[in-house]
Amino acid sequence: MDKDGKIGIGLLGLGVVGAEVARMLIQKSERLSQKAGRPLFLCSVLVKDMAKPRDSVVPPRLLTTNPADILNNPQVDVVVELLGGVKPATDYLRTAIAQGKHAVTANKEVMANHGPELIRLAEEHGVNLLYEASVGGGIPIIGPLQKDLLANEITSVHAIINGTTNYILTKMSQEGMDFQVALRRAQELGYAEADPAKDIEGVDAAFKLAIVAALAFHTKVAVSDVYTEGISKLTARDFLYAQELGYTIKLLAIARRIGDGLSLRVHPAMVPNEHLLSKVDGVLNAVEIEGDLVGRVVFHGQGAGPRPTASAVIGDILEVARSIASRRGPARSGTVDGGLRILPMEEMITQYYARLTVSDRAGVLAQIAKVLGDLDISIASVIQKNADAARQTAEIVVMTHPAKEAHIRQAVHQMETFGVVRDVSNVIRVEQWT
Amino acid sequence: MDKDGKIGIGLLGLGVVGAEVARMLIQKSERLSQKAGRPLFLCSVLVKDMAKPRDSVVPPRLLTTNPADILNNPQVDVVVELLGGVKPATDYLRTAIAQGKHAVTANKEVMANHGPELIRLAEEHGVNLLYEASVGGGIPIIGPLQKDLLANEITSVHAIINGTTNYILTKMSQEGMDFQVALRRAQELGYAEADPAKDIEGVDAAFKLAIVAALAFHTKVAVSDVYTEGISKLTARDFLYAQELGYTIKLLAIARRIGDGLSLRVHPAMVPNEHLLSKVDGVLNAVEIEGDLVGRVVFHGQGAGPRPTASAVIGDILEVARSIASRRGPARSGTVDGGLRILPMEEMITQYYARLTVSDRAGVLAQIAKVLGDLDISIASVIQKNADAARQTAEIVVMTHPAKEAHIRQAVHQMETFGVVRDVSNVIRVEQWT
Repeated sequence: MDKDGKIGIGLLGLGVVGAEVARMLIQKSERLSQKAGRPLFLCSVLVKDMAKPRDSVVPPRLLTTNPADILNNPQVDVVVELLGGVKPATDYLRTAIAQGKHAVTANKEVMANHGPELIRLAEEHGVNLLYEASVGGGIPIIGPLQKDLLANEITSVHAIINGTTNYILTKMSQEGMDFQVALRRAQELGYAEADPAKDIEGVDAAFKLAIVAALAFHTKVAVSDVYTEGISKLTARDFLYAQELGYTIKLLAIARRIGDGLSLRVHPAMVPNEHLLSKVDGVLNAVEIEGDLVGRVVFHGQGAGPRPTASAVIGDILEVARSIASRRGPARSGTVDGGLRILPMEEMITQYYARLTVSDRAGVLAQIAKVLGDLDISIASVIQKNADAARQTAEIVVMTHPAKEAHIRQAVHQMETFGVVRDVSNVIRVEQWT
Repeated sequence: MDKDGKIGIGLLGLGVVGAEVARMLIQKSERLSQKAGRPLFLCSVLVKDMAKPRDSVVPPRLLTTNPADILNNPQVDVVVELLGGVKPATDYLRTAIAQGKHAVTANKEVMANHGPELIRLAEEHGVNLLYEASVGGGIPIIGPLQKDLLANEITSVHAIINGTTNYILTKMSQEGMDFQVALRRAQELGYAEADPAKDIEGVDAAFKLAIVAALAFHTKVAVSDVYTEGISKLTARDFLYAQELGYTIKLLAIARRIGDGLSLRVHPAMVPNEHLLSKVDGVLNAVEIEGDLVGRVVFHGQGAGPRPTASAVIGDILEVARSIASRRGPARSGTVDGGLRILPMEEMITQYYARLTVSDRAGVLAQIAKVLGDLDISIASVIQKNADAARQTAEIVVMTHPAKEAHIRQAVHQMETFGVVRDVSNVIRVEQWT
């Protein structure tokens, strides 16, 4: 802060989000300063390459390639980290906080992996560390969990939290596209990266779930605690059957409290068509939070993109500025211990859809039923169709009643080594809200 | 606050919401105190009648009929007003704030009518005045507008914000019920009061819209600025035509920025079936906020009921407690001036649906088209059906292109005094999102 009480902002990164944040800070400076209660000014922006041609409103004199120009700059009150990736972003945030600077980040990977450490460090140094933009773009999720919904004991979180996969699944569901075709379409539109693995394998969603679950359940969550399964095994046939059964297939990120345990998982799930989450289409995101008082609330909107993400980043900058302006200490957090243990995936109980290719002969269903019955898995419904005369096979779709994941895995294993079942083509978990 | 740093809470009112808040403060005291960062304790509860039998966990020694026992009680740090109605609630809040006490209220009528005055008073006295529960029960709306979405210039708010009317409209839409039957059903289920006027005439929604719009647009809004029209004129026939045309009828509360003007209105509206708000059923509420950065975000959940409302009230109590615990000043607000003028309803431009009963003879449609054309209203589509041979009438439904409200009113007036139009049965505005 300079002697006139202006609040200095240092930006790490000038990618698409950084450019939008910088544009706002420069072009809407007066309006944002009114909202902040203090003048805001952009001091300095860290870039990788000074020479890179950029279509940005940032005056070249503010650019630097030396992180110390921001991290050690006494004019900088708030460091805004928009680099992405764990390194060197985590180190820069550590340094900034240790120097007594407030920090704002949009970095899900940093917050999922190093969030607890950085939050503790920020508390020790009496500064804010805000990260609304790390989950769900501009959709308020972190703020409501920290404040508006804090009175609740949260019982579950169900989220469609990755726009790339939701776009692909929407295309597969509504237009009967195959996975590879839908992925290519997403890449053409810039919704998926050239290397789409982090999105389609559910890793991006797992980062975000780890962040949200830690906050919602006051529990330490590691990314490795989240069971993660992607969408690449889904086929157009699964969408046809889902429709027939009254479901839509979505990549859900789920955190659910069961007794004193916490189940954490990202996987394709059948969502009943009546449920609001089944209606979230395209690149949109939605997060449903269930609390003991509030019941279910759903937050819906654009989960990515430079402007929505800038909305969250600048919202956090304004929050920091207002805390400085009213001489407040930072918002407190983390003193509550949820005391929950992370449940192993094998213990999870839900309904399952299984699509099997079987020999087209009498008694096959009875044999399948026996395998399932012996493992305590009871069948809710069966669809049998599409006999393939040439190959002498038929397709059977089984929906189970709630069963244990461990038992389902055993059943799949047994069926795969089973003469009459040619192939367990897919197994999809069915999410039920009661 | 007592010498041990405990935060004392005084409750005004022990109705259904008050009883739930008191129950939480007593039964979950330890957990809430952890979240607050300081011990919370319930000091005193104002009731009307000490002798009234109540099924409450509040020890009788905490009850009082004397407001001064709370308003002048040095142990009370936070006054929680859950009385409802303008009087005496507003006076109690004034007194509490003037005594330097923080205030939390769930009272939409007070905040819609006296919000700006009370907010100013709270700023003068350096205390918090929080009112999340006044709009949308437990759904976070006030908090996100004050914080998470603050970076945005809000362009529009579209809200389904009254559960009673949404329940009635859902029944009419999905089961073909008539208004009176659906209203009676709502009353039987406790969703509508014996005197349902405030709900069905849109007054309750107008209170809430005034609160939200003032905050979203940084503009002074009086309840009388909100054009308000209820749902009692809707008939089963309107729902049939709406369905045929691809719409659902909802009571919408709308605030929309148009240039430097602000259009504020509560009325039944045709919502396109693709829009998320058309899918909000029963007593549920949803608020869609559109900002220049974030795009459209939707907040969805239970808009009423003791537990959801208590979620918001206790969330506000925790926010106050945390501001006390971290020696923060109150959150600042109100320094931004949106500089918008309230637009008269007559200037509003939208599409219209009009259902007319006409003489069943040639040339009628041409005459109607001429009236509309002369007033610059162009027709988007026409449905003509249901000739009534006995009465020699037919029914015509006209959908217009965007037209000025003033012109539509003139057209209706002209058609009503018009030989061939027996009756302008209903006119419903059509809301379009572009």
